[in-house]
Amino acid sequence: MPELRKDYITDCWVVISTERAQRPSDFKKEPEVPTSKETCPFCPTREHMTPPEVLAYRPGNTAPNTPQWWLRVVPNKFPALRVEGDVNHRIVQVFNKMNGVGAHEVIIESPDHDATIATMPLKQVEEIVNAYKDRYLDLKKDTRFKYMLIFKNHGKGSGASLSHPHSQLIATPMIPKHIMEELRDAYNYYSFTGGTCIYDEIVSTEMEEKVRIVLENEYFITLSPYAPRFPFELWILPKRHDPYFEDMDDTERRYFAMILQETLSRYYKLLDNPPYNFYIHTAPCDGKDYRFYHWHLEITPRLTNPAGFERGTGFYINPMPPEEAARFLREGK
Amino acid sequence: MPELRKDYITDCWVVISTERAQRPSDFKKEPEVPTSKETCPFCPTREHMTPPEVLAYRPGNTAPNTPQWWLRVVPNKFPALRVEGDVNHRIVQVFNKMNGVGAHEVIIESPDHDATIATMPLKQVEEIVNAYKDRYLDLKKDTRFKYMLIFKNHGKGSGASLSHPHSQLIATPMIPKHIMEELRDAYNYYSFTGGTCIYDEIVSTEMEEKVRIVLENEYFITLSPYAPRFPFELWILPKRHDPYFEDMDDTERRYFAMILQETLSRYYKLLDNPPYNFYIHTAPCDGKDYRFYHWHLEITPRLTNPAGFERGTGFYINPMPPEEAARFLREGK
Repeated sequence: MPELRKDYITDCWVVISTERAQRPSDFKKEPEVPTSKETCPFCPTREHMTPPEVLAYRPGNTAPNTPQWWLRVVPNKFPALRVEGDVNHRIVQVFNKMNGVGAHEVIIESPDHDATIATMPLKQVEEIVNAYKDRYLDLKKDTRFKYMLIFKNHGKGSGASLSHPHSQLIATPMIPKHIMEELRDAYNYYSFTGGTCIYDEIVSTEMEEKVRIVLENEYFITLSPYAPRFPFELWILPKRHDPYFEDMDDTERRYFAMILQETLSRYYKLLDNPPYNFYIHTAPCDGKDYRFYHWHLEITPRLTNPAGFERGTGFYINPMPPEEAARFLREGK
Repeated sequence: MPELRKDYITDCWVVISTERAQRPSDFKKEPEVPTSKETCPFCPTREHMTPPEVLAYRPGNTAPNTPQWWLRVVPNKFPALRVEGDVNHRIVQVFNKMNGVGAHEVIIESPDHDATIATMPLKQVEEIVNAYKDRYLDLKKDTRFKYMLIFKNHGKGSGASLSHPHSQLIATPMIPKHIMEELRDAYNYYSFTGGTCIYDEIVSTEMEEKVRIVLENEYFITLSPYAPRFPFELWILPKRHDPYFEDMDDTERRYFAMILQETLSRYYKLLDNPPYNFYIHTAPCDGKDYRFYHWHLEITPRLTNPAGFERGTGFYINPMPPEEAARFLREGK
């Protein structure tokens, strides 16, 4: 059973994931990335190489775990957290831990080994967003989970270990640090202003200022945030205030798929398909009141390597002003 | 003038370092690492390639910025922050910024291009620690600076851009996020327990438990922390409670150099000279009372690549249990 352990001092939790344990000597080299279609476990006809699917979009007359699907969700074969068991939180002296209960799923975004969100048909991007929502709503029923992060690692430099296009969902038994910080600070702003959402303020102020906006459609904006940690970091923010990602209606999900694809296609075309990570920040699924929060998606390309200063301080040195990044991604020059 | 900008919401500050600005196309590739002695700006006889030295350990009869030094400190030629000017903190709407005032220095650890702390004579490691202290005490006089981080990037994978052995010092006009969090949590523990330092608790508890201890001498321990973010992460903790790194006396600095070298030589020998970052966490230099804090050094090897989950949550997945890492580094098997 993997363990979740809290730092002695700060709210920093880590997973001690013994099931993935490697011998010390295994850390000496970067893991190889199997990019070959010939052995890829996510390609059609190799459904037996993954755990059985928990969701698939496939023709009605096909059996589970056979080909012909156009999107497939399976449990991670090497999960960071396990679905079975109780959380069992214990504190003894300076040691604070709970069992590594959670869920870890893989959303296989396309049967096509070489597809990318930037270049696939828009309809397929919509299906990815639908799958995020479907899995989110299903796992939300499990009351042991307090938070769910949907994220994607694209390209070897992003930490991706397989090149077949996929996203991941990890459900955790507590609210992770960065989310807690956003919730705390959004709550403080809401209280202080007597009910204003700080993300609403960001959307309206940035739409007036214009210089950091990259893209806009009826329901969403893509902007380069005022204090980006990384060069070309972008956020996609819904214009309509809502704490919950899963509250989007069919139309909003279509517009979200549209702006997500267009944003990633700017990276693809203008930055030569860089490695990136994206993740959705949405309100926790613990049933509490989060009316002060506003869901959004953050994308961080991996163009620089944060070093000792960033590790030591949580304070980022970014050589690319967001106004310049936004202009370049907006205008293509 | 570079700018320090605070995230809209959280306490996350970034440097918008326009002086290092690159064209968007420059981000497409990893920067090359000049490892050649023939062009290295830190090698003796190339003193003119760096800004003039602010400290050097050299024979009394030699002139500044000439060879024969055995340790040299110079301003960073491409500083993240600039020494000139006022801080000038401004908040307008959701935009919060100050001028990028600070210091950014490079400690050239040895004239030998191929030296490493793990393998150089112990006497030289002592001189590095002396230089850290000398520069720290000098910069502490500048009341614009609230915090100073001494850190090292070793190896290309760590973010180091030059292979000649060097450390860095960055002084900032505010207390960075991770430090604030440690201070807050150490203060809470101190208040709650009526005056106990949580780091003292860690030292005594871990010395009883033994399983996470790697090395020990009269004044220090090296341990693999209970909830490490990274495989083989280690902390060096002084046994004597003191908030301030610069308070070490001559004997303590010698013992610190000794355990630092021995710790890094375990990495060197047992993990095949991996890239790593280390940094010293010490109390802020803003003149306030930090009696509840306890300085220490943290070392994080770069053996894994944190991905979207870590970026999105600040919650780390670590496949290597610290007890196993400690045993391996302690016993060599």
